[in-house]
Amino acid sequence: MAELSERSGVPVPTIKYYLREGLVPAGVATGATRASYDESHVRRLRLVRALVAVGGLGLDRVRDVLRAIDDDAADLHEVLSTAHEQLSPVPSSPPSRPSRDEVAALVRSRRWRVNADGRHSQALAAALDALAAAGQPVDEAALAGYADAAEAVARQELAGVSGVEPAEDAATYAITGTVLAEPVLLALRRLAHENLSTRRFARR
Amino acid sequence: MAELSERSGVPVPTIKYYLREGLVPAGVATGATRASYDESHVRRLRLVRALVAVGGLGLDRVRDVLRAIDDDAADLHEVLSTAHEQLSPVPSSPPSRPSRDEVAALVRSRRWRVNADGRHSQALAAALDALAAAGQPVDEAALAGYADAAEAVARQELAGVSGVEPAEDAATYAITGTVLAEPVLLALRRLAHENLSTRRFARR
Repeated sequence: MAELSERSGVPVPTIKYYLREGLVPAGVATGATRASYDESHVRRLRLVRALVAVGGLGLDRVRDVLRAIDDDAADLHEVLSTAHEQLSPVPSSPPSRPSRDEVAALVRSRRWRVNADGRHSQALAAALDALAAAGQPVDEAALAGYADAAEAVARQELAGVSGVEPAEDAATYAITGTVLAEPVLLALRRLAHENLSTRRFARR
Repeated sequence: MAELSERSGVPVPTIKYYLREGLVPAGVATGATRASYDESHVRRLRLVRALVAVGGLGLDRVRDVLRAIDDDAADLHEVLSTAHEQLSPVPSSPPSRPSRDEVAALVRSRRWRVNADGRHSQALAAALDALAAAGQPVDEAALAGYADAAEAVARQELAGVSGVEPAEDAATYAITGTVLAEPVLLALRRLAHENLSTRRFARR
């Protein structure tokens, strides 16, 4: 287990906890107090760790992702979507009809193959509602501008997934990338604002 | 005060609280229990409300922004940067030297006129550290890709600020837009991932 901890970067007490919760399969017993673990344990540990520590997921939601991975009938896309869906919170109140229509129109016009009623679509509609309530509605052109930027970022990010790695590695990569890259994008947007605002408004 | 509440969209008890805390100047007394407020009160109320309710700022940080606005020597750029800086938390531990160098190189190569040691730069360096620690370092090319997207978004967003409106309105607009548009951008990125992943990895 010490070796498993070193290989996966997950501390021993955390590994024991995951084993107890059934999130990581038990090793093959090789003695009264020893067990042997293989590469599949390392991969699974890294994924569970990414889901819990990076994604902030509760154990029930971690189990949903693992179920998708353990389902032999599921393809990599299903594993990635399950993982992604779990990362997006369900909006506390359903978004308005106009915002949902705006999202649906965007998805249609870009021919995006996405779940138009899924959590990401709902999160987007809820965010549009919040801006409209603050008196700064996002019109179709502005939304298209945001979508262009988002698509460019996603295309660049997905270039790192080959599709041939084990589903667990792809899911770990996708979750870590999705969550940890968000502050990168947001900090850059603020820096870009700082730059443009200096150029336009600074007197000196 | 009822009228002020209606015009600003801020509830009366909240207005009273802001007045007590000195965040909004008192009206001109027109009787024992009446006071008159003007357009400047409405503008100030909207700004304080945006800082507290949207930006999640504490009263001390709100006061820093108001000080910049009330400083006649400050230009619009200074007001906007003060407001923006207050929105970015100071990283809990200083970012690593390599990440700070990477941010500095980016700022230089794009000729961004920004504070290379400011909070946004530090937030960016800290975010790069987190990705590196997770085994997914962001190289120069990937960082440039993120910066392209961020710059396109910021340019579109800043087009809505004319520079001739009162500083309070510009600051309210900037804060609301900065904070409330973040979930729009992030939800779109996830939708774009869903689309690309479906196209690349779905078996059916």
